[in-house]
Amino acid sequence: MKNLTRRDFVMGSTALGLVLAAREGLAVGDDRALIYREAERRHDESLQRLQDWIRTPTIAAEGRNVEEGCAQMMRLLGEAGFQKVERMPTDGVPGVFATLDAGAKRTIGVYFMYDVKQANPDEWSSPPWDAKLVDMPGVGRVVMGRGAVNQKGPQSAFLAALHAFRAAGRTLPVNLVLVAEGEEEIGSPHFAQVVRAPAPLAMLAKTEGVFMPFASQGLDGNITINLGAKGIVELELIASGERWGRGPGKDVHSSLRATLDSPAFHLVQALNSLVTADGDPAIDGLTDRVRPLPAADRALLDTAARRLDEATWKKSYSVQRFAHDADFRTALENLVSKPTVNIEGLVGGYTGPGGMTVLPTKATAKLDLRLVPDMTYEDTIAKIRAHLEKRGFGDLEVKVGGGYDPTTTRADARLVQSQAAVYRAAGVEPVLWPRLAGSWPGYLFTGAPLELPAGHFGLGHGARAHAPDEYYLIESQNPKLAGFDAAVKSYVDYLYQLA
Amino acid sequence: MKNLTRRDFVMGSTALGLVLAAREGLAVGDDRALIYREAERRHDESLQRLQDWIRTPTIAAEGRNVEEGCAQMMRLLGEAGFQKVERMPTDGVPGVFATLDAGAKRTIGVYFMYDVKQANPDEWSSPPWDAKLVDMPGVGRVVMGRGAVNQKGPQSAFLAALHAFRAAGRTLPVNLVLVAEGEEEIGSPHFAQVVRAPAPLAMLAKTEGVFMPFASQGLDGNITINLGAKGIVELELIASGERWGRGPGKDVHSSLRATLDSPAFHLVQALNSLVTADGDPAIDGLTDRVRPLPAADRALLDTAARRLDEATWKKSYSVQRFAHDADFRTALENLVSKPTVNIEGLVGGYTGPGGMTVLPTKATAKLDLRLVPDMTYEDTIAKIRAHLEKRGFGDLEVKVGGGYDPTTTRADARLVQSQAAVYRAAGVEPVLWPRLAGSWPGYLFTGAPLELPAGHFGLGHGARAHAPDEYYLIESQNPKLAGFDAAVKSYVDYLYQLA
Repeated sequence: MKNLTRRDFVMGSTALGLVLAAREGLAVGDDRALIYREAERRHDESLQRLQDWIRTPTIAAEGRNVEEGCAQMMRLLGEAGFQKVERMPTDGVPGVFATLDAGAKRTIGVYFMYDVKQANPDEWSSPPWDAKLVDMPGVGRVVMGRGAVNQKGPQSAFLAALHAFRAAGRTLPVNLVLVAEGEEEIGSPHFAQVVRAPAPLAMLAKTEGVFMPFASQGLDGNITINLGAKGIVELELIASGERWGRGPGKDVHSSLRATLDSPAFHLVQALNSLVTADGDPAIDGLTDRVRPLPAADRALLDTAARRLDEATWKKSYSVQRFAHDADFRTALENLVSKPTVNIEGLVGGYTGPGGMTVLPTKATAKLDLRLVPDMTYEDTIAKIRAHLEKRGFGDLEVKVGGGYDPTTTRADARLVQSQAAVYRAAGVEPVLWPRLAGSWPGYLFTGAPLELPAGHFGLGHGARAHAPDEYYLIESQNPKLAGFDAAVKSYVDYLYQLA
Repeated sequence: MKNLTRRDFVMGSTALGLVLAAREGLAVGDDRALIYREAERRHDESLQRLQDWIRTPTIAAEGRNVEEGCAQMMRLLGEAGFQKVERMPTDGVPGVFATLDAGAKRTIGVYFMYDVKQANPDEWSSPPWDAKLVDMPGVGRVVMGRGAVNQKGPQSAFLAALHAFRAAGRTLPVNLVLVAEGEEEIGSPHFAQVVRAPAPLAMLAKTEGVFMPFASQGLDGNITINLGAKGIVELELIASGERWGRGPGKDVHSSLRATLDSPAFHLVQALNSLVTADGDPAIDGLTDRVRPLPAADRALLDTAARRLDEATWKKSYSVQRFAHDADFRTALENLVSKPTVNIEGLVGGYTGPGGMTVLPTKATAKLDLRLVPDMTYEDTIAKIRAHLEKRGFGDLEVKVGGGYDPTTTRADARLVQSQAAVYRAAGVEPVLWPRLAGSWPGYLFTGAPLELPAGHFGLGHGARAHAPDEYYLIESQNPKLAGFDAAVKSYVDYLYQLA
């Protein structure tokens, strides 16, 4: 996922674990007790399924295991009870469309991603493709590997819930329509071709909303429900002597700088024009479409600011000061409401140790921009191009990656209220958060023509998405955190709640 | 060498080869004929010595073969007839000080470097450490490897000349004082500790000047004599959240950009302040000490601009336009007379394929600045620091690499006049060039306290210093280009000329 996981930036304090423990003894419907028991009995099999999945990474940026990953995704869905599982060809990595007709009244949409972010094994304490079980003090036994939390762990817990229903001989209380993609980590450039194909679109239109399985708990057990997400544009800005018609057409000795222009400085000057002295977006017209934050969202932020701990927040990101030296409440509001221009990476010329007297012909900046309502992906790209053109940087190559429009879901949607109900039943009062500062392709569900509620759900804990030593909690040693089986049960509960 | 080799940017047209060929039949002194013959007889042995040397690369930036390279340098000098060869410890890689007392009237200084630039074997058509012989159409048989032309090839040719004197039983016509270093490719940060140590300094003071063996010929056979060189400062500018006290103290998810400052943009803004909109240096006070180009130098440029071919020049660097859309004569003058600020490389955050939604805590720019008289290395660094401090970038780490002051040598110095005489005798009218746009540590010889003439000498051809497939010509198939034996003989001639 391209989002900052909720657990990463919302922290509070509840005593989920005690409630969870107590709950085991509660009287639940016989059906549900049976399903819970099957989930527990099949723990090893479910874990094995997750580990196998991590060991076959699909990485769109590297073209790795694309067909294998798609076939595996289809097999996993078929085994979990989806009656119809279709490969959906796109102009890129194929997607998957699957339906599970339980003869139920209500139908729920599910979003899956089967790809994972790249990983550099040198940086990991346990190899990213080994999916080993590792003991983390204060947390428990986790599965460590790329994709563990983002998103194979939570998705495996959801699949395990479906297996438990089947094993218990119980029919799902809702019908399911699932769409999956293998390009989430590169910005879902072709996922619209899956969602908007006639059959998935018609079936998704019958759903009450779409959710993505998710490990919602922070290390303190706290849970946030996001009522939307920012959009994103990822792109590379590439300055080159060849396109510019200035500077060298190949890397040359740096002494020539005295009479040749520098594409790298040309890039620096273009980048400099994208932000104010304070680092805020300065792209012409970028904020024209930005809607002011609604009063209701500001009220949610007031509550969140009271519940969250500034010192803990800052410590977790090694932050000394917020931008603009903002206070915590303002910093949280900025997180939710401000568009951004970010440099993900800079690369040009000599990048090894020490120096190398070269005048490079090319330099690249990898950027991402986060969008708030009513900015759009397409309009933002057009504005960047116009801005560069107007300022003498029209020669720069704007290599657009994937991205999404922002999403919004109403707090009173049943999809959201059902999540809150399950969390509350588990003893956690969720924090309602106006907008995830990160992004996910939910706009395909929340935007036209579907205009559905969309969000994330799931008990459970994991962390370090996109970073080394990514993990997902299997056996909890922390009373506030749900382990794998408890996560599975939360999906069982959610399906009943939605029904 | 940190210079752009002369052959790379000065091209003309002479018919050296015909003269060289004719010359073989000329009557030369009996001694010299004997020495020439020994040089030819020992061709294979000399070539083997060069290949062995390339196969043991010393790379200061990587700490590779430091002691081995120094020991090998000492052995090579001892075998060539230097009676005294001393390891010179420094705070970095050791240097070497060697003397060859021939009982002659005059004493000449020689500068050697035993290190080479880094190489990425993936980019080479023949492995950089194999030193294989390769046939290059239109050129001849070359030895290909890192250091072939920069500087082991020319230095091996000079050593071969000394071996030829010994084998012929002839005494050198001049005494030699040699200083060598193993850190030239990182900007000679400790070479002053070699040159200014009491014994070398005293011996160098007795010399008429210092020269470095060099492959002077461009592909067209043309030769340039540089009457000085620009100075250089290499440094890294490093922005980090930790030092800045703003932005994240570690790489975090890019969604946090909405409320955290960006060290990468901070770097971009600092870099942007270093140049004008046109890309010229804008560092406060940087040009205060720049002396106007003397009339004599402008006259040399007039001549050079007439002899050089603009189209060939531009083609060789894939250049469409000079900076400021300058005409050729102005472009050449800028090359010689303007200080520069160059970005060698940019590296920060995610640098792999595609994107990665990270807000990096750190970004680095590798810079080099070229200095003209009377700018100095120390003063330039002080001005960069002051400039950054004044503009709110005082938190950036300025990691200074090596560098040199600019050098100037008078055209009427015997060291220079003797070079011209040997080239003319070989049928090449050298182009006198006011100042090499590249740099070398010659300031240690031309500056106080020694204030000696210093420059480069040698027939021969090679190219691609610092680039893949670096080579040095061994057996010429081009009548305009001197092969290895002819290069060796040019050193014999030069020593006689100097005597």
